[in-house]
Amino acid sequence: MDEHDILTRHLRPLAADFAPARGLLDDAAVVRSHEALAISTDTLVEGVHFPSGALSAEQVARRSLRVNLSDLAASGATPLCYLLSLQLPPTTDADWMAAFAAGLRQDQEQFGLHLAGGDTVGTPGPLAVSITVMGRVALGDAMPRAGAKTGDTLLVTGTIGDAHIGRLQLEGRLPADAGAEALAERFLLPTPRLEVGRKLAALAHAAVDISDGLTADVRNLCVAAGKGARLRLAEVPLSASARSVVNGGHLTLEELANSGDDYEILFSVPQHAVREAIETATESAVTMTAIGEVTDGEDVTMVAPEGGAPRTAHGGYLHTWAKPTG
Amino acid sequence: MDEHDILTRHLRPLAADFAPARGLLDDAAVVRSHEALAISTDTLVEGVHFPSGALSAEQVARRSLRVNLSDLAASGATPLCYLLSLQLPPTTDADWMAAFAAGLRQDQEQFGLHLAGGDTVGTPGPLAVSITVMGRVALGDAMPRAGAKTGDTLLVTGTIGDAHIGRLQLEGRLPADAGAEALAERFLLPTPRLEVGRKLAALAHAAVDISDGLTADVRNLCVAAGKGARLRLAEVPLSASARSVVNGGHLTLEELANSGDDYEILFSVPQHAVREAIETATESAVTMTAIGEVTDGEDVTMVAPEGGAPRTAHGGYLHTWAKPTG
Repeated sequence: MDEHDILTRHLRPLAADFAPARGLLDDAAVVRSHEALAISTDTLVEGVHFPSGALSAEQVARRSLRVNLSDLAASGATPLCYLLSLQLPPTTDADWMAAFAAGLRQDQEQFGLHLAGGDTVGTPGPLAVSITVMGRVALGDAMPRAGAKTGDTLLVTGTIGDAHIGRLQLEGRLPADAGAEALAERFLLPTPRLEVGRKLAALAHAAVDISDGLTADVRNLCVAAGKGARLRLAEVPLSASARSVVNGGHLTLEELANSGDDYEILFSVPQHAVREAIETATESAVTMTAIGEVTDGEDVTMVAPEGGAPRTAHGGYLHTWAKPTG
Repeated sequence: MDEHDILTRHLRPLAADFAPARGLLDDAAVVRSHEALAISTDTLVEGVHFPSGALSAEQVARRSLRVNLSDLAASGATPLCYLLSLQLPPTTDADWMAAFAAGLRQDQEQFGLHLAGGDTVGTPGPLAVSITVMGRVALGDAMPRAGAKTGDTLLVTGTIGDAHIGRLQLEGRLPADAGAEALAERFLLPTPRLEVGRKLAALAHAAVDISDGLTADVRNLCVAAGKGARLRLAEVPLSASARSVVNGGHLTLEELANSGDDYEILFSVPQHAVREAIETATESAVTMTAIGEVTDGEDVTMVAPEGGAPRTAHGGYLHTWAKPTG
């Protein structure tokens, strides 16, 4: 199998119905949009973003596409197309590649987007998938991360911590019980909240997708606006499975709020629009929960479930490298 | 050093003057263009696309950006912005990161584009830089790869084979003589032919940037149009240094035509426009050489310098993986 096989057999069919991709024949796709284009990129590395050998080719493909679509959801954009940069280790074979392409096709159809271009190279290192995704958005409607205002309510979609528990169970670091399969699915196949993102774009002051962990992304959202936040841990929405993991003493609520990979959306919504935002999400069959408020100042604090004085929130995932030498 | 340091100290300043980047605070950049956008992505992996340890951080940065800009050149587009996906090994330190950002800044200024977004992750594997570049292009002016017509003249910018010789000398696989530094520079720091690409967009039927090797990219251009080509090896433009390497018996002319990393542009130009195309390139201080013609049929053949019957052209770089199992 060589680059040419991958392009002609596996990737070109994914671009077939999308004229701007120019059949993947060209050096560049040529996209025209009367609306603005929201553009984002995310890379997944095997052994870093998911355990080595734990995901099928379809799962790698779909997870890679979905974490990128989650960025579009947080911008209120509608998916249009994506570029795919593949770094494939020497052992990659045609079966793996066919399954990977089938996974992409499945999610292309589900989310209504097309392959527009890419690059496939060999690597002596781990499998890595870098996707750049593009979506259409009315210029004034693109939700910024930096728009939070003091007094806004912080709303979050879905439930928090499931993906983290699912990953720990996949890695054998937590006992897997009856709910394990559903939790693993939350890790393997996140659901980008595109419809809710689009519908709330006009209501919310700001939004961010939760990839580094709820507390970290609350901080990201607040720092961007020069604000602080007060987070009520007791209000953080948990699934029944996650609740039982907490009740069983395996993980604390705070650990779940600090864990990553949720790919839910955190919105900062003015108080007068909170009810409408919750109702709108409910119409899309997505739960929406108020978990705190935006405050003046720069501290993100947490109120523990048992009450007491708010504490500064730490935690969340950060890639780190060698100490600065300067 | 963590993701946050890299973002705030090194990357955010590169997006400072470009409103659509939204300060790299957001999940997505939001780009609006009245013209169409040409979009392309290319990944460079250390030890694959350049020898391990041979390039400074600045050189990695600039080479990564330039190979992407070369795709825009072949599309006739004007650079606008780029997204940067960095996979950094554990040993990456702040000095390396600062030098990498300085390299990007230098080329941003030279080529007039801006950082619009990205993603920085750790990897247990080699350093990899994946860039997605965007340029503005009038929709009708985007040069396709598939537009070649029978009878078109194949024109190529600059000289061929220098980068390959430079790489071999860098790796110690060819003796380095007086001209070695200039040849290494051709490998380390390719010159994207943006001005010529833009100016010839209205004249040429098709174009491709030469990354896999001249013969391979002639084939890519012809296959895309369902055409063949006749290439005259004696006409392939060589620098004086490359000529002396060939005359010294170290490499053949055919090996240079099969080598990669030139990042020159191959144009397919109707005969009546050839003179104008060459004059236009000359005005931009870029040499332009006719090396063959587009033919009916599907064969790309080469006429050797000593004449004789044309032979089918093979060669060019292809990433390969395990044999198909099916």
